[in-house]
Amino acid sequence: MNASLPFADWMKAVQADTEAALDRFLPAATQEPAKLHDAMRYTTLGGGKRVRPLLAHASGELFGAPADAVARAACAVEMIHVYSLVHDDMPCMDDDALRRGKPTVHVAYDEATALLVGDALQARAFDVLAGATDVPPARLVTMLRLLAEAAGSAGMCGGQAIDLDSVGVALTLDQLERMHQLKTGAMLRVSVLLGALAGSDLGPAQLEALGAYAKAIGLAFQVVDDVLDATADSATLGKTAGKDAAANKPTYVSILGLEPSKALAEQLRRQAHEALAPFGEQALRLRELADLIVQRKA
Amino acid sequence: MNASLPFADWMKAVQADTEAALDRFLPAATQEPAKLHDAMRYTTLGGGKRVRPLLAHASGELFGAPADAVARAACAVEMIHVYSLVHDDMPCMDDDALRRGKPTVHVAYDEATALLVGDALQARAFDVLAGATDVPPARLVTMLRLLAEAAGSAGMCGGQAIDLDSVGVALTLDQLERMHQLKTGAMLRVSVLLGALAGSDLGPAQLEALGAYAKAIGLAFQVVDDVLDATADSATLGKTAGKDAAANKPTYVSILGLEPSKALAEQLRRQAHEALAPFGEQALRLRELADLIVQRKA
Repeated sequence: MNASLPFADWMKAVQADTEAALDRFLPAATQEPAKLHDAMRYTTLGGGKRVRPLLAHASGELFGAPADAVARAACAVEMIHVYSLVHDDMPCMDDDALRRGKPTVHVAYDEATALLVGDALQARAFDVLAGATDVPPARLVTMLRLLAEAAGSAGMCGGQAIDLDSVGVALTLDQLERMHQLKTGAMLRVSVLLGALAGSDLGPAQLEALGAYAKAIGLAFQVVDDVLDATADSATLGKTAGKDAAANKPTYVSILGLEPSKALAEQLRRQAHEALAPFGEQALRLRELADLIVQRKA
Repeated sequence: MNASLPFADWMKAVQADTEAALDRFLPAATQEPAKLHDAMRYTTLGGGKRVRPLLAHASGELFGAPADAVARAACAVEMIHVYSLVHDDMPCMDDDALRRGKPTVHVAYDEATALLVGDALQARAFDVLAGATDVPPARLVTMLRLLAEAAGSAGMCGGQAIDLDSVGVALTLDQLERMHQLKTGAMLRVSVLLGALAGSDLGPAQLEALGAYAKAIGLAFQVVDDVLDATADSATLGKTAGKDAAANKPTYVSILGLEPSKALAEQLRRQAHEALAPFGEQALRLRELADLIVQRKA
């Protein structure tokens, strides 16, 4: 995307590019099994902030990634994210009826379809990324492995397992941070890394700088989520507000209070900016995304 | 494994090798989140016929695959298979309480854990395969892509979706075959292919021969499953017998009858042998596995 675009326009362009790429990388709704493919498209297309694709594009641009490779990285992380939402919303997990302003998959279709939609989207994510023919195979294998680690029990699934076991439990701030680093942070981090690796091998210093940036925005993302869950309404969020408090789940707001949580988010935003210092002016989009994550209203 | 071993001993050696490799490739039960890792090990270790690992090892030996690479291929296909069983057994799918003679994961733990166990095992499968450092990266990317295709909506998940929509529906033999080619056949086929690719690039003729073999044993596997479901008891099967008939699901036995189904299985066994002709004596283990699949009692 054009480096001189105002941020809001760049963001819209990336979101449109991601929507088109997801549409391209998902099986047609007319292809058998039609109901499964229809449900995969229903839940993936036409919504979402696309935070992970934005991160992949921002770091992809920083490292000169080819358009197809960065689109595949962006769609792979988004498909993993979307599948996790579909499974998370199921009755045996959060039992949520509303997501991105639409009925959740198990409500719009049925539970068995929701289960299979999530399973098939995860497989599709690896399929799409593995098709990045512009990336040298050795680096692509690294990217596939990073994605698998971030999605699995040492990443997102592990964080969800800890989250499940934390309902009604008085977590320390460290334990809460650890849970979110796995549940949300691992996939945000890999979004940044895959975008960069789509363009170039990374040296240890670059990996460390990107990792520090990702860690800061990952935590900021969750702190802001908790603040919004406590302060915004369902219509603004496009999902059920106040559900963490209702479920007696520990949050930054419940542990730190509202104003200290907002201050922490701002502090993490500054840390994210500092981590990007080695990349200079070129890291504009990553800085802007840190600002977006902290200043968003939904 | 030693080429001069009697088949039963070779099979036991591969099963023991697979058990050890799965143990090695799964996170320790003491590692956080402990409950998730414990449940992943509970459902993966200590049971199962390991048909897919046996196929991977058989074709791996035919193509001289290094031990680590074939073990990773074998564990990857088995992890995908096991995750599909865990999700399949959940209340919103087949609602089965018994698997491999043990309580299913949602019974032994809870539904949310079963959901996450399946999700994390799928991610782990890609992680384990991507770690096959003995395989040249370009070929490894092909293997990862084949695994993703076989697991996804054009393979196993797609077959399950068709299966769900077929309850109480009068399928033709062609439709039943198509369903099973996706639901079971795709993963059996990729087990054969990944074992071979762990050892060597494959030419079109080799791919075609292995594909024809896999297609025949894939169908034979399902025909025999239907015969056993109609004739064996739960204790012998280690799972609930007669459940397809009870669920009014179309089967080979319900469409063709019992004796014609047995004759079809035998015909497919011969087709599998014929497909292996180009590989000569070397394909002994693959021939023996075709015999096993047709002649098994559980």
